[in-house]
Amino acid sequence: MRNIKLTLEYDGSKFFGFQRQPNHLSVQESLESALSKFFNQPMKIAAASGRTDTGVHAEAQIVNFKTASDKSVAQIQKALNALLPESVAVKKVQQVSDDFHARYSAKSKTYEYCVWNAAVRSPLFGTRAWHIYDPLDIKIMRQAARILIGRHDFRAFCAANGSAKTSVRTIKKFLIKSQNHRIVFTLEADGFLYHMVRNIVGTVVELGQGQLKLKDIKAILQSKDRAKAGRTAPARGLTLVRVTY
Amino acid sequence: MRNIKLTLEYDGSKFFGFQRQPNHLSVQESLESALSKFFNQPMKIAAASGRTDTGVHAEAQIVNFKTASDKSVAQIQKALNALLPESVAVKKVQQVSDDFHARYSAKSKTYEYCVWNAAVRSPLFGTRAWHIYDPLDIKIMRQAARILIGRHDFRAFCAANGSAKTSVRTIKKFLIKSQNHRIVFTLEADGFLYHMVRNIVGTVVELGQGQLKLKDIKAILQSKDRAKAGRTAPARGLTLVRVTY
Repeated sequence: MRNIKLTLEYDGSKFFGFQRQPNHLSVQESLESALSKFFNQPMKIAAASGRTDTGVHAEAQIVNFKTASDKSVAQIQKALNALLPESVAVKKVQQVSDDFHARYSAKSKTYEYCVWNAAVRSPLFGTRAWHIYDPLDIKIMRQAARILIGRHDFRAFCAANGSAKTSVRTIKKFLIKSQNHRIVFTLEADGFLYHMVRNIVGTVVELGQGQLKLKDIKAILQSKDRAKAGRTAPARGLTLVRVTY
Repeated sequence: MRNIKLTLEYDGSKFFGFQRQPNHLSVQESLESALSKFFNQPMKIAAASGRTDTGVHAEAQIVNFKTASDKSVAQIQKALNALLPESVAVKKVQQVSDDFHARYSAKSKTYEYCVWNAAVRSPLFGTRAWHIYDPLDIKIMRQAARILIGRHDFRAFCAANGSAKTSVRTIKKFLIKSQNHRIVFTLEADGFLYHMVRNIVGTVVELGQGQLKLKDIKAILQSKDRAKAGRTAPARGLTLVRVTY
């Protein structure tokens, strides 16, 4: 059997999340049905970030599957892009070693969260962003980012229905860039808890609005209590941009 | 009567063009009905670029209207943004001199046309672009741009049903920028004929694909014959970015 790795880009607003579910179109279902059609047998995939919610986008979601077929990677890519809906594309197809697993082999993942920070909404540039009307204090939000970088128990930022065994994760990078009313939060970690990026961004934005103080961020992290943290930022602003192996 | 100037941003894919027409939602109709509601009387607007087609976007379309009301510009902006659909926003409201007319006072307009130039479509970055699969020759397209800059009779690039009295226009600027598979054509002129930007881009792209030679561009311009020029580039890649007065 060959092990095939795919790099996917998709517009999350067109799907009900990544993971297959009854009665709603998911990225997984679209992809598995395209693969099953092409290989003429039922196909299953594994994904780097299989639990991304409805509305979350990907510039580079990684999946893999096994096949006995001898179709070339170029043939696979061409066929999948023809069979898949417009809102998802296979950017790259690679044959990888047998032991590669899109999820378990991942060393880190990087997400970007975009905020449109202006008094007036932007029909063109705000469609994949969270609209915050009041000017955010970038400087204090960057101080919060420095507090959160590193190895911590992030339970306070994990959705109540999260299923991970441990809530200790290492944030390797947390950058905040601001340009022309767009604020982009970039977070890289060895793994993320359920809703972790959206809960961190929601909390840091409350700090940027002056609703929280810097000392509250430290206290929230130490409390390990979800009820202490800020709101969950909406899914539309979130994009999975990179998975490293 | 006060004369009020508005700067509008909109996502053209959500409207059937700018101009009011029966049975289809236009930007003009949305705006005039919001104004009529706010001022509690029938309102009419004039627009810088009133004939933009279905699918064409605007970062800064300019309109103006007259009113006897003493509502502040801030009140007008707030009310309109609350009354308008999400896909259009009033970015700026200014009181201007009596003789200002959004269309007739315009000195120049700038459009951007975006091409997504990659073998694979982009669900995230290609939605407001024309997808061209084969790599385009940027260098030769820039040489064509230099031929088209200046005062010329652009009849060859005007749609057959164009209604302008003269087809002589002056292209002041024609830039082509390429970055990460996105190619952006920026054209500034004292005015544009119907479909002129889309016909120029369609023709220059055929040159970039090797289907036309540089000498053909000169010959097409001189022919004044629409049938000689290339195809009309699709509306979705086009955005009105600036009107100067």
